[in-house]
Amino acid sequence: MSRRIEIYDTTLRDGAQGEGISFSGPGKLQVAQRLDALGVDLIEGGYAASNPKDMELFREIRRIPLKHARIAAFGSTRRAKLSVGEDPGVKALLEAGTPVATIFGKSWLLHVREILRTTEDENLRMIADTVRVLRENGREVIYDAEHFFDGYKDSPEYALKTLRAAREAGAATLVLCDTNGGSLPHEVAAITAEVLKADGGRIGIHAHNDGELAVANSLEAVRAGAMHVQGTVNGFGERTGNANLCSIIPNLALKMGLDCLRPGSLAELRSVADFVCEMADVRPQSKQPFVGSSAFAHKAGIHADAVRKSPRAYEHIAPEAVGNVRRILVSELSGASNVFLKAVEMGIEMDRDAPEVREVLHELERMEKEGYQFEAADASFKMLVQKVLKRHKAFFHLDGFRVIVEKRRAGEPCISEATVKLRVGDQAVHTVGEGDGPVDALNQALRKALEPFHPSVRDVKLTDYSVRILDPKEATAAKTRVLIESASGSHTWNTIGVSGNIIEASWEALVDGLEYKLFIEEQAGRGERAGS
Amino acid sequence: MSRRIEIYDTTLRDGAQGEGISFSGPGKLQVAQRLDALGVDLIEGGYAASNPKDMELFREIRRIPLKHARIAAFGSTRRAKLSVGEDPGVKALLEAGTPVATIFGKSWLLHVREILRTTEDENLRMIADTVRVLRENGREVIYDAEHFFDGYKDSPEYALKTLRAAREAGAATLVLCDTNGGSLPHEVAAITAEVLKADGGRIGIHAHNDGELAVANSLEAVRAGAMHVQGTVNGFGERTGNANLCSIIPNLALKMGLDCLRPGSLAELRSVADFVCEMADVRPQSKQPFVGSSAFAHKAGIHADAVRKSPRAYEHIAPEAVGNVRRILVSELSGASNVFLKAVEMGIEMDRDAPEVREVLHELERMEKEGYQFEAADASFKMLVQKVLKRHKAFFHLDGFRVIVEKRRAGEPCISEATVKLRVGDQAVHTVGEGDGPVDALNQALRKALEPFHPSVRDVKLTDYSVRILDPKEATAAKTRVLIESASGSHTWNTIGVSGNIIEASWEALVDGLEYKLFIEEQAGRGERAGS
Repeated sequence: MSRRIEIYDTTLRDGAQGEGISFSGPGKLQVAQRLDALGVDLIEGGYAASNPKDMELFREIRRIPLKHARIAAFGSTRRAKLSVGEDPGVKALLEAGTPVATIFGKSWLLHVREILRTTEDENLRMIADTVRVLRENGREVIYDAEHFFDGYKDSPEYALKTLRAAREAGAATLVLCDTNGGSLPHEVAAITAEVLKADGGRIGIHAHNDGELAVANSLEAVRAGAMHVQGTVNGFGERTGNANLCSIIPNLALKMGLDCLRPGSLAELRSVADFVCEMADVRPQSKQPFVGSSAFAHKAGIHADAVRKSPRAYEHIAPEAVGNVRRILVSELSGASNVFLKAVEMGIEMDRDAPEVREVLHELERMEKEGYQFEAADASFKMLVQKVLKRHKAFFHLDGFRVIVEKRRAGEPCISEATVKLRVGDQAVHTVGEGDGPVDALNQALRKALEPFHPSVRDVKLTDYSVRILDPKEATAAKTRVLIESASGSHTWNTIGVSGNIIEASWEALVDGLEYKLFIEEQAGRGERAGS
Repeated sequence: MSRRIEIYDTTLRDGAQGEGISFSGPGKLQVAQRLDALGVDLIEGGYAASNPKDMELFREIRRIPLKHARIAAFGSTRRAKLSVGEDPGVKALLEAGTPVATIFGKSWLLHVREILRTTEDENLRMIADTVRVLRENGREVIYDAEHFFDGYKDSPEYALKTLRAAREAGAATLVLCDTNGGSLPHEVAAITAEVLKADGGRIGIHAHNDGELAVANSLEAVRAGAMHVQGTVNGFGERTGNANLCSIIPNLALKMGLDCLRPGSLAELRSVADFVCEMADVRPQSKQPFVGSSAFAHKAGIHADAVRKSPRAYEHIAPEAVGNVRRILVSELSGASNVFLKAVEMGIEMDRDAPEVREVLHELERMEKEGYQFEAADASFKMLVQKVLKRHKAFFHLDGFRVIVEKRRAGEPCISEATVKLRVGDQAVHTVGEGDGPVDALNQALRKALEPFHPSVRDVKLTDYSVRILDPKEATAAKTRVLIESASGSHTWNTIGVSGNIIEASWEALVDGLEYKLFIEEQAGRGERAGS
């Protein structure tokens, strides 16, 4: 068996420092669960001292059953001239109650002198004291040697002394950090090798991407003998980001033949990358290596033709290996098998070579051109397939709606009112609803209209609502994509709406969400009858 | 003097293959001029055979006086079984009339056999014939050895034979291409060194970013002895893009001490990167190393404080070296020193220890709890500071607004109408606007109300609009955060609004955006008066 590389994810801490990245508390828990399922070994949940939201996460995460990953809390060495028992940061680290504590300390004399403004010896004691007290309290300690490469270039002796202080106090892993992200791959390789000569133990790497070299630097450290790699999903992180695990992991596994994650989970990589974007509320980068939507996209012409003859002619790996797909741009017949697979995955009966597959594909392509994207809207995709296959039965017909949002006076709250006019069978229904905002008001009016005919819509809750502007250049006149998550009991589903008008896009997704509920109920009813 | 590395830019050819990239004809000429001014040595104008737009560019570029750069036309070796005189591609290359011709040929037997479907010998003749005829017609020839690394790994002998064919026929530079972008840095270093042992001449590197390693691969090739680097501005290019010259150049110049571009021009790098984005009609990537707007942005309290004490504590290079600037982000992780630094950066006079700094910080914390986030809303932050310092003068007072969105019949488009009631001084104003959606309608009505008093609002354009749902669990009853980017001429600014009602949040950001415009105008007016 090949050497196993330990993967340490810091998306929820260092990644959350990235400009524009923001996770909600429940979102962080969901990310941790997905990372665990992927087979990540260690998940850094947050900075133990920094804010109450992170401390709450540590409390809540104990209730979640993780299959494989251990949770780490992040903190720093004690402050200068403070005993380790008095230090509030160290206290918070212990209170976090995680099995692993990761602390950073100073390796670079510039920082010891100008930032900490303390002595070389006091810095070494700060490292040793903090590691020791964490070990005494039963924590596995990971020591992040901040600015290690800059420090080593400045004074190799002192940089190695700081590592020795951490190791002798009981740190399990010493992580060499390229905190400013400015080191070159050959420097990282050489210095990592020197460290391994001096320390025989477990060494890790933590790189930043300021020189666009974080992935290379991580790989070079591993080639030099590092056994532990820190990074973030999608390379989220301060400034230009942390080392991108979505690139490091497939390079380790597919190019260097090293063992990481759990067997078979690499094919989940793209879906994890997309999920983390969604939770962080940022757009996925289409150009992102391995997991981006353009990563295996071939423009028509020489490349597309060659790829058809022999995929490896223009693809460095098989896209499926990381859960991605090949896209042939312009040429439109590439997705038929995808549609088929998707339909099967959703339990829709369909013949692979049936003309309906093509029909669904054409409709899908038309809608995708308008901005629809069914990846995150399974229920809308299912309804679309039903409509194309003419299996869809409309539960109601919309005649019209009107939404009014009014602010009567400065300082007063807005009021939102919606009216809905529709027909169920041959009955006309006209209702009005009020809400916290225009979409909420529409939702209220729509339920009021449907409940007398379909009482089960009462159980449907809207559990998520997200909005993307598709063509930012057009600003408020641009197209808007709305995604809605609905739930009934423990069952959740997602629908989509697209329009130049945000209210209309929301309406479309709302209606799809309720229709889907009625549709699956009807199917279940049929199933029951068939079964009886 | 240090070794000079020749920079070959293919933004206008390989870069233009990127998904979403589109240059106009005049745009290409402007890009070529900027690259020339930067000191790029060679500019690939386009694919000579591929389209008439590129051929026109070659004609037009002759009329433009370039100071330093030479223009190259791109093409391929002649087709199999066609004489070089008959080949339409070679003809087009000659017609392009550029001093340099760059042709690609096959190095990998997989391609020779499965894609070209020809013999090993015929491929060698195709290379030699094409190079020779271009040389005979007075062209400097650059030979791009496509898939060189994959080919070399498959059969080093054959890969080297193809290089020899090109060299013996007169190619000035042999460029090793990692066409599929899957090679690792140590492989590139080793293979480049082998090539240099076999060929004594000028070797170049052309990398793609599929493994997120294009920059590292380019640097490693240079370390092994390559003297010529091909890439694109911002890493534009097919799939995950080409090697990013905006990262390679500063790494070569600032980290490796090599000579490239013209002396002093490195400080133009960010403005060239932004300009090329504009010409290609894509948004700059804020996280981009060296030239991105986040590349020197500091968010965490610790970092911001340390950077104030000593910039090199958290910056790998001085931002000015590449024409970039340091930014201090204001966020929930920030402390008093961030607020102070931000205020200074914005030209607001404030004493570091003044009680106002605390006051702003408290107001900031209160608002951040409600969901405001000022790191992406500089203009709103500035307005907030003015309000806390009681320096803010309201340009108008809002009385109320009303928005109506109506869909009269299924299939008909929605109509959106907004009315706005406000006072400017003691004058009451009541206007109505229509738009593509509710926010657009509000924007129209608001401008109509303000234009008679402040004609300059006419110049303000909304250039981006984004929506975030803050607590997704509450779905449509959750808080909504709206960010708006406004622009007037080349000046852009960002504002924020937060509310349970998406319309109200949008309104707030809209109003802030226009008030900011009036505010800076007033300040500029004061400045002029003070100066006169």
